[in-house]
Amino acid sequence: MKQEHSLNVEKLIEMVKDVRVCMLITNEKNTENLSGRPMSISKIDADGTMWFFTKASSYKVEEIGESKKVSISITNESSNNYLMIHGIATMVNDKTKMKELWNSIMKAWFPLGLDDPDMTLIKVKPKEVNYWDSSSSKMVVLFNMLKAIVTGKEYEEGKHGKINL
Amino acid sequence: MKQEHSLNVEKLIEMVKDVRVCMLITNEKNTENLSGRPMSISKIDADGTMWFFTKASSYKVEEIGESKKVSISITNESSNNYLMIHGIATMVNDKTKMKELWNSIMKAWFPLGLDDPDMTLIKVKPKEVNYWDSSSSKMVVLFNMLKAIVTGKEYEEGKHGKINL
Repeated sequence: MKQEHSLNVEKLIEMVKDVRVCMLITNEKNTENLSGRPMSISKIDADGTMWFFTKASSYKVEEIGESKKVSISITNESSNNYLMIHGIATMVNDKTKMKELWNSIMKAWFPLGLDDPDMTLIKVKPKEVNYWDSSSSKMVVLFNMLKAIVTGKEYEEGKHGKINL
Repeated sequence: MKQEHSLNVEKLIEMVKDVRVCMLITNEKNTENLSGRPMSISKIDADGTMWFFTKASSYKVEEIGESKKVSISITNESSNNYLMIHGIATMVNDKTKMKELWNSIMKAWFPLGLDDPDMTLIKVKPKEVNYWDSSSSKMVVLFNMLKAIVTGKEYEEGKHGKINL
């Protein structure tokens, strides 16, 4: 099972590594509305953890403070990758990590560079990953660590998804 | 104000008309989780209403039955269009409308064509439209018919969004 999970994380990384922009979805404060904004994925770790730069003063940081459950939507027509990822977000205010992840593209948002005192990181640990397999036109549950039922879940359009832990 | 709203709907149509795939996000039944799947936008009307073909037996139809609030996430890197749309979904089981919207691409999902008894339509009326303006790097609220406060809302990254009704 462990090995199968590793293969699934590898598949996740393969699909995400060339995606420049995703939609990071949080829960709006004090409402039942969703809040989404395009975000650049700075890095995906070997265990599937995704990293984002953000301003500490931004709304999304407040929203994550209220509810750590976030979703990441990827609809990349050119690479034909469609993913819906649900995970847990944590704020990481670590300058060493920021240095490791920094690249010059981020200057568009942080002209002050790594000296910007308002810079911080969002770390998202995926708990459920669904992707659309274009060859079979099926929604596949890559992994799901949120749900109790882990096998044979029927998915979208009456097709069967695979759940591997 | 009416005229400004029309211009905003035109802008929405301009951004959406060439988008082939979006992520349609619903609320999972009996949980607080989101549920998303890539969907092809069949048509966007002159008033911004969006149409999707779906199987009547699919999970998302059940989910819309429970909660009509849906979101549409668009992250189109090639056209540089990033939108987060919140709206109200209605199921429309109207064969005349299906005939009007049908195109041969839908055969991939409905090999039986318009005779498929499991075919139905989802109509999404946008209530709040946010898009990312790439030239100014600002999140712009194109229109918002959900919120009481309609002017001067500060948005993502400390930048100011425009709200036009």
